[in-house]
Amino acid sequence: MKTNKVSEAVIRRLPRYYRYLVQLAQQGDERISSSELSAIMGLNASQIRQDFNCFGGFGQQGYGYHVKSLLREIAAILTLDHTHPAIIVGAGNIGQALMYFEGFEKQGFDFRALFDVNPELVGKRIRGREIFHVDRLESYIRDNEIEIGVIAARRSAAQALADRMVSAGIKGIWNFAPLDVQSSVPVENVHLSDSLFVLAFKLSNMEAGEEQ
Amino acid sequence: MKTNKVSEAVIRRLPRYYRYLVQLAQQGDERISSSELSAIMGLNASQIRQDFNCFGGFGQQGYGYHVKSLLREIAAILTLDHTHPAIIVGAGNIGQALMYFEGFEKQGFDFRALFDVNPELVGKRIRGREIFHVDRLESYIRDNEIEIGVIAARRSAAQALADRMVSAGIKGIWNFAPLDVQSSVPVENVHLSDSLFVLAFKLSNMEAGEEQ
Repeated sequence: MKTNKVSEAVIRRLPRYYRYLVQLAQQGDERISSSELSAIMGLNASQIRQDFNCFGGFGQQGYGYHVKSLLREIAAILTLDHTHPAIIVGAGNIGQALMYFEGFEKQGFDFRALFDVNPELVGKRIRGREIFHVDRLESYIRDNEIEIGVIAARRSAAQALADRMVSAGIKGIWNFAPLDVQSSVPVENVHLSDSLFVLAFKLSNMEAGEEQ
Repeated sequence: MKTNKVSEAVIRRLPRYYRYLVQLAQQGDERISSSELSAIMGLNASQIRQDFNCFGGFGQQGYGYHVKSLLREIAAILTLDHTHPAIIVGAGNIGQALMYFEGFEKQGFDFRALFDVNPELVGKRIRGREIFHVDRLESYIRDNEIEIGVIAARRSAAQALADRMVSAGIKGIWNFAPLDVQSSVPVENVHLSDSLFVLAFKLSNMEAGEEQ
């Protein structure tokens, strides 16, 4: 699939399409018009058509979209139709929470092991997956062809961990440490506090009853 | 401050400005030009000036921005200069991880209590904060003038919990359950999996060595 030229903005909308389509499919909706889809997504219909055209387009004139087919197509574009072996570095609360997070496994993300330096954690299991000492990070990645490395460690350790994972052949990094790590492979830096700050701003600046 | 008309896009950039300025201040940088700021933020300089003008503007022609003053101004706009009493509903892994998350407290978010239905959790303490039975949710919110309610509960419980918190006077909702809750107060729905899916897309669609 020629998707290298798809813009960052389109890529970032794909998971949202996926989420809404999952919801429609669960409700038993069989098809949806681009105007209905645009209403629930808060995007205009021509934007949606343009987005889908980046991947060859999925709709039929006058029919709209077949929910299950569209869902399958978008899942395939997001590569949720195959397995992504992953590991988590940092077996503290965030690492453990991610192991228990609803749905990742169903969507093909297979968190196979955790790594930590804490001797009280090493050797234990979380949801059946072992916590190894971080000394074994590189060999585990190599031996198990791990694709995704999750950083759930301290800020001060994050960049060095990213570098080590990349040197061992990791393909992408999902970083929860509160600084942006730099890497030659794709990185998603998650800043949970951003949405909390937006919320704080809104609740202090929006009058009661004001439309959002 | 008249900030009601600030656009959603500007509001969503504020936490990023804040993060970068914290980093600059920690490095000991005293001032920064709008072009330097634009380079590290990946925004163009006129965008940054426009954003700041929404709040009265903070720069001086030819001088750029004084890092500490700008940081203080943006922290004040984000209302990080005062305390936001908050509670967490759901004392499982996500709720507990949020209690331990680096920095929220320093930035004024005071998670005072957790709530759960699980009798094995009720009565325990996380970081010194008690887990109450969810029956006490409304009275606790009222008696303690809680501003922010965090939903770290199951998908099926999320909307009902949001409704209960709003009826008890909560001002904003930070939702981690994997569905968008609707409310008359500001809501931030966090979808952790969105960034994971974007990562999966990128690592499958970007050639090795390709510029991101």
